[in-house]
Amino acid sequence: MTRSDRPPHRLGVAGLGTVGAALVKLVSARGDFAPSGESVVISGISARSRSAPRGADVSCYDWFEDPVALARSPDIDIFVELIGGSEGVARAAVEAALQAGKPVVTANKALIAHHGAALAALAEAKGVPLLFEAAVMGGTPAVKLVREALVADQIHSIAGILNGTCNYILTQMEQSGSSFSQVLKQAQALGYAEADPTTDVGGFDAAHKIVILAALAFGGPPDWGVAEVEGLEGVDLLDIRLAGDLGYRIKLVAAAAKSAEGVSVRVHPTLLPLDHPLARADGALNALFIQGENTGRMFIQGPGAGPGPTAAAVAADIADVLAGAKRPVFQRPAAQLARARALVPKALATKAYIRLIVRDEPGVIASVSETLAECGLSIDSFLQKHMPESVGDASGGVPIVLTTHPAVESVIFDAIARIGALPTMITPPRMMRIANI
Amino acid sequence: MTRSDRPPHRLGVAGLGTVGAALVKLVSARGDFAPSGESVVISGISARSRSAPRGADVSCYDWFEDPVALARSPDIDIFVELIGGSEGVARAAVEAALQAGKPVVTANKALIAHHGAALAALAEAKGVPLLFEAAVMGGTPAVKLVREALVADQIHSIAGILNGTCNYILTQMEQSGSSFSQVLKQAQALGYAEADPTTDVGGFDAAHKIVILAALAFGGPPDWGVAEVEGLEGVDLLDIRLAGDLGYRIKLVAAAAKSAEGVSVRVHPTLLPLDHPLARADGALNALFIQGENTGRMFIQGPGAGPGPTAAAVAADIADVLAGAKRPVFQRPAAQLARARALVPKALATKAYIRLIVRDEPGVIASVSETLAECGLSIDSFLQKHMPESVGDASGGVPIVLTTHPAVESVIFDAIARIGALPTMITPPRMMRIANI
Repeated sequence: MTRSDRPPHRLGVAGLGTVGAALVKLVSARGDFAPSGESVVISGISARSRSAPRGADVSCYDWFEDPVALARSPDIDIFVELIGGSEGVARAAVEAALQAGKPVVTANKALIAHHGAALAALAEAKGVPLLFEAAVMGGTPAVKLVREALVADQIHSIAGILNGTCNYILTQMEQSGSSFSQVLKQAQALGYAEADPTTDVGGFDAAHKIVILAALAFGGPPDWGVAEVEGLEGVDLLDIRLAGDLGYRIKLVAAAAKSAEGVSVRVHPTLLPLDHPLARADGALNALFIQGENTGRMFIQGPGAGPGPTAAAVAADIADVLAGAKRPVFQRPAAQLARARALVPKALATKAYIRLIVRDEPGVIASVSETLAECGLSIDSFLQKHMPESVGDASGGVPIVLTTHPAVESVIFDAIARIGALPTMITPPRMMRIANI
Repeated sequence: MTRSDRPPHRLGVAGLGTVGAALVKLVSARGDFAPSGESVVISGISARSRSAPRGADVSCYDWFEDPVALARSPDIDIFVELIGGSEGVARAAVEAALQAGKPVVTANKALIAHHGAALAALAEAKGVPLLFEAAVMGGTPAVKLVREALVADQIHSIAGILNGTCNYILTQMEQSGSSFSQVLKQAQALGYAEADPTTDVGGFDAAHKIVILAALAFGGPPDWGVAEVEGLEGVDLLDIRLAGDLGYRIKLVAAAAKSAEGVSVRVHPTLLPLDHPLARADGALNALFIQGENTGRMFIQGPGAGPGPTAAAVAADIADVLAGAKRPVFQRPAAQLARARALVPKALATKAYIRLIVRDEPGVIASVSETLAECGLSIDSFLQKHMPESVGDASGGVPIVLTTHPAVESVIFDAIARIGALPTMITPPRMMRIANI
């Protein structure tokens, strides 16, 4: 049959925020985007408000008050979930669609990070695909890269800048010399950050994404429980300046690594050497750096959010559904996903950046370095300088920055506790990890 | 059935150079790399020499003197072509395998660039996949990115560093201050460049790859005839230094763009701003920069060659064969591939870098700028300086560099011809294009 002879595949789209509206526009303009020769049309829709302004006419589609009813409707062939959230209607609707034997395409990172294994088992039992490219890095195909392109390699580590809001805030702090709270307020005013920014700046959004990538990379189930998450709230402009003096840029890095001992999955502010590709991903960009046994080092960078890129990723998943590939949802069938041992962060080794603000008096450096020596923590570099003018600080103290050679984190935390107790400390020490990638 | 119940898929591998040997090792170590639950084994092999040292034991596989016989053998299920070359046995064997209804995986960029459309028609007529991820950027999934991840977007332009040998040579010239011919000799001694380097340094390898990517991006047939190719031979150390002074790095860029007027496909030395991601891809890396309607700007960087990465890409294609996706070979079925109008390079607009070596005497700059004004070519910047010490030049001349505002190339070439005829010129003017990406 030619293109036009075939009946189009009917989409049910639940959730009509900016991404949903962009998908409606994309599909109504070019429903024949799939090279398979088949086309798609939107049939049914569901959203919180029927009449919200969207910049896309949705009056011609069947309206469903309940996304679960849409998911089950015999008049749709593929269910697209753009509601968000790990529980509630989003989860119920995805489960209902899979139960009804319908392929599901979703952009819902929280849902996959929390319930991916169970949903994968359900999808595979029903013999339908469950695709979620848009859940990680928006329009940049991180999921396809790890799931398909690197499938024959053994991935050792992945590290990414996976939250555009955080990266925008850090870039703005560095470039404008404003504080975290000032930049956050600007970002909220511009619509780059949510009114409640916790999911983004707390690192949870990035953590959802790295949990998903870790599952794909290492052949385990997505396991939200193992993620160790530290957000951006504690990053001072002072540290951005001092790290720059040492040749580093601070980024919120989401990282997962696998060794013979087990797997670690973490999100925290991280110092990256200025010449590392991840250090150069500025503004709202997302970026991902992968190290594999055969492949070596690979890097991809692109739009991590935004209606256009994210809708294009959803549409690419729809094209994959039409292509009909039979793949397990993660790296192997759900029943064979093997949970690796989660490594205790305190037992992991890292290089550390430690910043102190001390009274400007004799003997301070000696007492700090003696304490570090007692703890067995070896210093790589030591920098004492006046408070940068651009930062401003009323404490009257002097910053001291030291970087360490790699040490297990329990040793580092012990040393910091002891240094923090020295009488010459004006503020508690600030520690950040230095990337080993 | 469980994994072990299913009979493994049997590979016939033709060509046992470094990539073929790496594939043999990968498959014999982990033939179960495909997440589909099926496994692969190598069944038959063919190569020029049966006894060449390969670091992999191949005595256990059926030996075929003739790769065409291997391609047709009833004892293989998937044919892997790693011979290379657009004609001869490689082409005959791929055609024979497709004729026999066998899926083909190849790393052969020349074959696909020259005969991709006919092979796609044959593969689609027989209902079998023809996959060639390893043909472009080695282990870095450029093909999958363009063919699948960006399938719902409209790609405006792609620009890449697609030949690792050229990029290694340029990086070495810049870092060591050696000339092109010196670095080429070193690269040959180290095995980074072929004894006959024409395919690489002449730009033809990169051109094969951009022809393939252009076909995937724009939905046309691969069309070797439209590629405009200029290699690395004319790049002087002097230009690398002067471009650096102006804030640019010279790279051999393979680029394709589509506009309402038509398509252009080109390979030539190009000045890239130092902060462009492509400018930062050093050494043997490959990199690709894509601009799409919805997706915006995307960048991927990774290993462009090497046995390990390339074999992993071949294996990923094999996993895709097992997943059973039904996709046209290019962006639409072979019969619907529409050749776009090829744009005449001389009608395209570009910013240009023009380097002169002139006699150090009064009036030279005036005569050059008058000539440019007569041609209607507008100057963006002008730099006159002493010959850099590191370059050395016996001419006694003084370099003058100017950059232009965008102009159509016919105007630029006309201006260069007239400037070259000025009596104060010591050597012919050197022009390179400045990237507009």
